[in-house]
Amino acid sequence: MSLSRFSINQMTVRQLSLPELVDACGELGVSNVALWREPVREYGVEAAAKLVRDAGLGVTTLCRGGFLTAVGPAERAKALADNRAAVDEAAALGTDTLVLVSGGLPAGSKDLRGARERIADALAELGPYAEEHGVRLAIEPLHPMFASDRCVVSTLTQALDLAERFPAHQVGVTVDTYHVWWDDRAPAEIARAGAGGRIHIFQLADWVTPLPEGVLNGRGQIGDGAVDMREWQGYVEAAGYTGPIEVELFNDGLWARDGREVLAETARRFVAHTE
Amino acid sequence: MSLSRFSINQMTVRQLSLPELVDACGELGVSNVALWREPVREYGVEAAAKLVRDAGLGVTTLCRGGFLTAVGPAERAKALADNRAAVDEAAALGTDTLVLVSGGLPAGSKDLRGARERIADALAELGPYAEEHGVRLAIEPLHPMFASDRCVVSTLTQALDLAERFPAHQVGVTVDTYHVWWDDRAPAEIARAGAGGRIHIFQLADWVTPLPEGVLNGRGQIGDGAVDMREWQGYVEAAGYTGPIEVELFNDGLWARDGREVLAETARRFVAHTE
Repeated sequence: MSLSRFSINQMTVRQLSLPELVDACGELGVSNVALWREPVREYGVEAAAKLVRDAGLGVTTLCRGGFLTAVGPAERAKALADNRAAVDEAAALGTDTLVLVSGGLPAGSKDLRGARERIADALAELGPYAEEHGVRLAIEPLHPMFASDRCVVSTLTQALDLAERFPAHQVGVTVDTYHVWWDDRAPAEIARAGAGGRIHIFQLADWVTPLPEGVLNGRGQIGDGAVDMREWQGYVEAAGYTGPIEVELFNDGLWARDGREVLAETARRFVAHTE
Repeated sequence: MSLSRFSINQMTVRQLSLPELVDACGELGVSNVALWREPVREYGVEAAAKLVRDAGLGVTTLCRGGFLTAVGPAERAKALADNRAAVDEAAALGTDTLVLVSGGLPAGSKDLRGARERIADALAELGPYAEEHGVRLAIEPLHPMFASDRCVVSTLTQALDLAERFPAHQVGVTVDTYHVWWDDRAPAEIARAGAGGRIHIFQLADWVTPLPEGVLNGRGQIGDGAVDMREWQGYVEAAGYTGPIEVELFNDGLWARDGREVLAETARRFVAHTE
């Protein structure tokens, strides 16, 4: 397809500064970006907002809030405050969607169920706050290989079970092909999410092996791996999703290359592998 | 608990030769082993059978058959012949259970569903052959991080959906904590498997991070990670399982140590972390 719905996730080309990224998007005809909190805060939230606004770029999401599984009251309060700040930043950047990565098991804990329940408690506080600021929370299930150390929400089913306790304009889900491609229940869960108006963002990454040590930075360039992008695009579109499609790759190989070249390649791959 | 139900999977201490393993089991009061095809064939199947039989050791499973996802007729015929040989070896060793790892996607394929269906086709041929030889096939769902390159069967749900097309004395499942611990549906699926008489073996390994490159050899020693072994033992026992409990660890750190010491440690951990 054309680039009209393409959004480049800032992490894919993290070697580019924010002005470089904005500039490269202009050159390549890319009209949407997804931003990350750390580089945005480093640049200055207001300055970043002005930069992308002046360039006419849409901000599809801010990545990411979450990490809501702590047990201690002080740690929990700190996490909630940090997430309220993330909502403020999303609103300042002009995006309506904050991606949430839930967080892993607290050190020494073996209680996945308890950790998942604490996320619901946090969403009850954060959902109304986000709504007041015109921001929707998008719970992202991460691949089960991250269940202990990064995200106890491992499937779309779990993410939707959490989200559906709240209004859709407060809490929905992130559908990322990298995390759900193996799951034979995911197509039905995408339909469920779409019917409820809860697909807040759709992200692409390909699955390639062997996974690197730590497994975080092994996401494949679109077309390099086991995921049929058109198949998954078909599921979200059949579920009524017409929003932007982000490409979010964490990949040491891509980061070692020229960022503009990687952005150009990613845009070409997007066009070649989506409808 | 005591060591009466403990079975040491040969891979956990692969640095030990088969005679060394048998000897160490005798010293430590370990009465069951799970064997692997490659070292057994290297030693000689009949010689291995005699060695364990003379030592009074039970053989809980033979690991492993499977790799049944090839498309081409020649490759499929070869895989089926290899699996019939594995059944023969299991029977010769005196075990009633052959563990099956399904195999990953063929090179270049993105068709998980098709690969899963080809496993069913293969089981229709292998199930009756196994029954004739007094051997049950135990489909092992592997963690979803292995879905593309090792095993397209990622959940107990999928494994049971496959197994239930056949009689339980032909095809059941392997429940391995390492592969299912993250899955909130697994407890219900264990109950389903137990009700159908399809829990053919129960294996323990702990989940530890960071995962190593390639992720295969990162299984944690019992007690070192995120898995509550008693919880999972409780699920299989509530489902009626009273059979052996194998500890199967693939871990470069353990393999670098003295094998007898690792076996002794594993036996101690088993006693400390099971009921």
